[in-house]
Amino acid sequence: MTFTSLTLAHGGGGFRTERLLREIIFPILRPGKSAAMDDSAILAAPGDGRLAFTTDSFIVSPLFFPGGDIGRLAVAGTVNDLAVVGAKPLWLSLGLILEEGLEIETLKAICQSIRATADEAGVEIVTGDTKVVERGKGDGCYVNTSGLGRVLCEPPPSLAGARAGDAVILTGTLGDHGAAVVARRESLALDSPVQSDVAPLGRMLNALVERFGSAIHTLKDPTRGGMAMACHEIVEASSVQIELDEAAIPVRREVQGICDLLGFDVLEVANEGKAVVLCAKEIAEAVVEFLAGFNCGKRAAIVGCVVTSDHPLVLLRTRIGGERLVAKPAGEILPRIC
Amino acid sequence: MTFTSLTLAHGGGGFRTERLLREIIFPILRPGKSAAMDDSAILAAPGDGRLAFTTDSFIVSPLFFPGGDIGRLAVAGTVNDLAVVGAKPLWLSLGLILEEGLEIETLKAICQSIRATADEAGVEIVTGDTKVVERGKGDGCYVNTSGLGRVLCEPPPSLAGARAGDAVILTGTLGDHGAAVVARRESLALDSPVQSDVAPLGRMLNALVERFGSAIHTLKDPTRGGMAMACHEIVEASSVQIELDEAAIPVRREVQGICDLLGFDVLEVANEGKAVVLCAKEIAEAVVEFLAGFNCGKRAAIVGCVVTSDHPLVLLRTRIGGERLVAKPAGEILPRIC
Repeated sequence: MTFTSLTLAHGGGGFRTERLLREIIFPILRPGKSAAMDDSAILAAPGDGRLAFTTDSFIVSPLFFPGGDIGRLAVAGTVNDLAVVGAKPLWLSLGLILEEGLEIETLKAICQSIRATADEAGVEIVTGDTKVVERGKGDGCYVNTSGLGRVLCEPPPSLAGARAGDAVILTGTLGDHGAAVVARRESLALDSPVQSDVAPLGRMLNALVERFGSAIHTLKDPTRGGMAMACHEIVEASSVQIELDEAAIPVRREVQGICDLLGFDVLEVANEGKAVVLCAKEIAEAVVEFLAGFNCGKRAAIVGCVVTSDHPLVLLRTRIGGERLVAKPAGEILPRIC
Repeated sequence: MTFTSLTLAHGGGGFRTERLLREIIFPILRPGKSAAMDDSAILAAPGDGRLAFTTDSFIVSPLFFPGGDIGRLAVAGTVNDLAVVGAKPLWLSLGLILEEGLEIETLKAICQSIRATADEAGVEIVTGDTKVVERGKGDGCYVNTSGLGRVLCEPPPSLAGARAGDAVILTGTLGDHGAAVVARRESLALDSPVQSDVAPLGRMLNALVERFGSAIHTLKDPTRGGMAMACHEIVEASSVQIELDEAAIPVRREVQGICDLLGFDVLEVANEGKAVVLCAKEIAEAVVEFLAGFNCGKRAAIVGCVVTSDHPLVLLRTRIGGERLVAKPAGEILPRIC
C-alpha cells in the first residue's frame, strides 16, 4: 500500500504515523541513522560552558518561494537565532504540523530542504514530532524548529549590549525575503525575479564572534518587522539611539521597486539571511572586511551609528539630507511571511 | 487602546506583537523576570553529564476539557517525554501558533495553565515564539513545547532496554485523557464526568530512576496510540514479546463505559498522566509500592510481563481466559486528541 497524500490517520500515533516517519521522513532527515523512537534525544553536554536554547514556528505562505521554502526557512531561522547570541548551533528539533491532504511529494521536498540546509549549517536534527490537522486548517504545513547551541564567548552579544559610539553594520541587502514572498504571492510579473535571502548564518557569525570576541556588542537578525523593528529592539534594550544613513543601506533595485509598487517601507520588510552587527567604531571597517569574506556577507556595509540619548529612538538620515523618525512597525503589512 | 481578540497584526513582529507579549503573555509566564527579547535563552550547562532534548506540538480540540486544557497538556507532555528517558526536566520553550480572532481571555487562561503546570513540574519557560494565522487556519491555538533536561542515570531507560523476564507496570488507570476529550467533544451526558489524567510525571519518574537506577529498563508514556502503541514500540525496539493481563489493567468504570459506547479499545486511547514501567520481576512489587507513594501513582499495578520471542508481538490474556493479539493502532479513531 502506497500513499500519495496525508490522511488524519497519519497523525494518530498508530502504524500509519509510524509508516509516515519510517518511510518518508526519517530516510530523508536521518539516512543511515537508527530510527530510535525514544521520546527525547540524549546529547552530550558540551563541557562546562553555557547553552543557548531557542524556538521558532514558521507559517510562510506560499510554502515554496523564489530562493527557498518553509524547510530552509525553519532551519536557517533557528540557526540564526542561536548565532546572534554568539552560540554555535549544534542540535535542532523538528515539529511538523501537517494538513490532511498534503501531497507526500510536497512533504518530501520540504524534508529534503530541511536536510540540505541542516547539512549546510552543520547542525543535526535530533528529535521531532509530527501531527496532522483537518483539511482547511494548518495551511499545508507549519514547522517548529527549536535549537540548542554552545555559547562561544562571554559575555555573549546581546540586544542590551549596544553602546554610544558603536557602528551599525548590515551584512547585506535589505528586504529580499519579504519582497520575494510577496512577489510570488501577488504573482507580480518581474523582469528579474527577486530571490529570498534565506540562509543559515551560523558559520559566518560564529567566525565573527571567534575573531572579534566581546568587541561584537550586538547581533540581531532582522526578520519579522525588518530592520526597523530590529533597531527598535536594540535601542530599547540598550537605552541608546540609532541613526541610520539611508544612502548607505544596500537595497537591490528590484526589491526597492516591489516596495515602491506595493507601498512598503523596505526597513520593515522581513529578511532571513541578514544580520545587524553593532561593534566599536574603531573595528567597524575590519568587521565589514571580515564579513565580506563570506558569501552571505559580500555586501556588508556600515549603515549607521549609535548615539547617547534619553530617548530610545531610531532615526534615518534620508538621501536628500533630511532626517525622519523610523516608527516601530505595526506589523500588519505582510502577514504569514516567516 | 485595549484589545480583546487577536488580529493578524499581533503576529507581524511589530509593536502589536510586542504589546501582546509584554502585556498579556510575559506577565503570566515570567512575572517579575526581565522581559529580555534576545532570540535565544542562555543557560548554564549542567556539569559534564548528558542532556535530553525533546519537542512536541499539541493540537487538541476542544482547547479546554474536563481535567485540563491545551496549556497543561503542552507542559505535561514535554516534561513526560524528558522524564521517560530518565532526565530531570529543566527548561522549556514555548511556540504559540494563534488564530486570528482568538479571545485574549482564552489566551490568558491558556498561559496561566502553562505557568501553573510549569511551576508544578519545577521547570522554567525560558524562550518562546508567537505567530498568528488567519481566521479558520489554526483552530484557536496550537502549542509547541520543546524541552531540555539533565540525564539522571547511565544507561538511561530506553525503548530498547526491555528484557525477557521484566514485569510490565502501569502507573495508573488507562484511557482517562482520551475518554474525557471525546466525551466533551461528543457532548455525552454522563452521571460522573470523566476527567483527563493530564499531569507532569517528572517528579515521580525522576524519583523512581534515582531510587532504582538502571534497574528501570524502560519508561514510556502511552499518549497517542495508547498502551497498545506504547507496547508495540517497546517490543520492536527490544525484540521481545509483551503479554498483558486484561484483568490486571486498571480502567475506571466510566472510561470503560465511554469506550464501549463509542466502540474504542481502551488500550488504544490516549493517556497524558501515565507511564509504562519495565523492570526486573524481582523488584516489581517494590516499584509498585514506591509509585503508590505519589499522587499520580496511587493505582500503579503490574499488568503484564516480557517474554523472549522471535516475533515482537503484544498479546492480551483476556478476562475470560483467552488470548488475543493486540494490533498496532491504525490511528484514526481519535484525531486531534493531544
